[in-house]
Amino acid sequence: MELGLLYSGGKDSTLAALVLERFYDITLVTAHFGVTDEWEHAREAADATDFAFAEIELDQDVAEEAVDLMREDGYPRNGIQHVHEHALEAVADEGFDAIADGTRRDDRVPTVSRAQAQSLEDRHDVDYLSPLSGFGRRAVDRLVNAELDVQVGPSEEIPRADYEAELRALLAEEHGEEAIREVFPDHDQTYVHGLRE
Amino acid sequence: MELGLLYSGGKDSTLAALVLERFYDITLVTAHFGVTDEWEHAREAADATDFAFAEIELDQDVAEEAVDLMREDGYPRNGIQHVHEHALEAVADEGFDAIADGTRRDDRVPTVSRAQAQSLEDRHDVDYLSPLSGFGRRAVDRLVNAELDVQVGPSEEIPRADYEAELRALLAEEHGEEAIREVFPDHDQTYVHGLRE
Repeated sequence: MELGLLYSGGKDSTLAALVLERFYDITLVTAHFGVTDEWEHAREAADATDFAFAEIELDQDVAEEAVDLMREDGYPRNGIQHVHEHALEAVADEGFDAIADGTRRDDRVPTVSRAQAQSLEDRHDVDYLSPLSGFGRRAVDRLVNAELDVQVGPSEEIPRADYEAELRALLAEEHGEEAIREVFPDHDQTYVHGLRE
Repeated sequence: MELGLLYSGGKDSTLAALVLERFYDITLVTAHFGVTDEWEHAREAADATDFAFAEIELDQDVAEEAVDLMREDGYPRNGIQHVHEHALEAVADEGFDAIADGTRRDDRVPTVSRAQAQSLEDRHDVDYLSPLSGFGRRAVDRLVNAELDVQVGPSEEIPRADYEAELRALLAEEHGEEAIREVFPDHDQTYVHGLRE
């Protein structure tokens, strides 16, 4: 069975691929808006893992809506959730038997409720899996340490390919650098350099 | 890392073991009350899968409390939930690095909330995983078909080792056969005969 996994190049979505590898032919799918070329970092991370890779371009209106949401809210949560939901719909349209993402039990955003999962499955005739949603933070950290070669650091220093990079760029382009600091608190990100030997 | 997986001999807990097999040294742990010897069916299913097996005996007071709950309610849900929570506590006391169960996204019972999971982890200094909680019903069915040799049938005809069998026996012993029909609706169960070639 063919599975498309929404992929950022970070530790969670990479670990999600390892969890599902036994059961599915996995393609890591990076969704982006064509705003920057940072999604190429996901391709490089994917190359280091031996999984197949694909990229899909999302409607730029979705990015604009997300930026507006984040500016109104003063925090990124609802904007990122908005983009994640659209990205799942886009991957579901690609004809896979199943789709998946790297959301964890303790994630506050993005989240996919049981009702949203069922709706996605019914509308697209696809199975939706969130293989890490039963894994807590410490379990994920332990498995990542055991399985992945990971670089950790502040958001601005780590190569990354999730939506946040492009949304930051759009924010800065439309509202100045100050808007980024207003919306995004400082936090660390991870980037996967490969599997451990 | 050593993981103890609460095990019934059914498809869900067997599939949960396959999901986690890559990451942990797994022991399938069947919890029972010593009321009947039906837990031996779980040992037989475990033998067919090559995982290590252990059994633990729960406090019979918990079974009595569960039977009382089911009789009061007229349905089994809260009684089974009560036993499941005690069984997780008991497995967590066995010294594993991590514990797990086979609860699925669409299960109504047993369920372990995020708060319950966190509490279990904090109190026992153990990771709790519910590897199927991000898998819907159809995905589980497809993976079970691909991976397991399973027998499906009505509850009373399928060998089984989950708590329900013993709770049924206790109900019948204390309140007569009629009490079983009052509490348990008809439904199909599964029993795992082994892995597919």
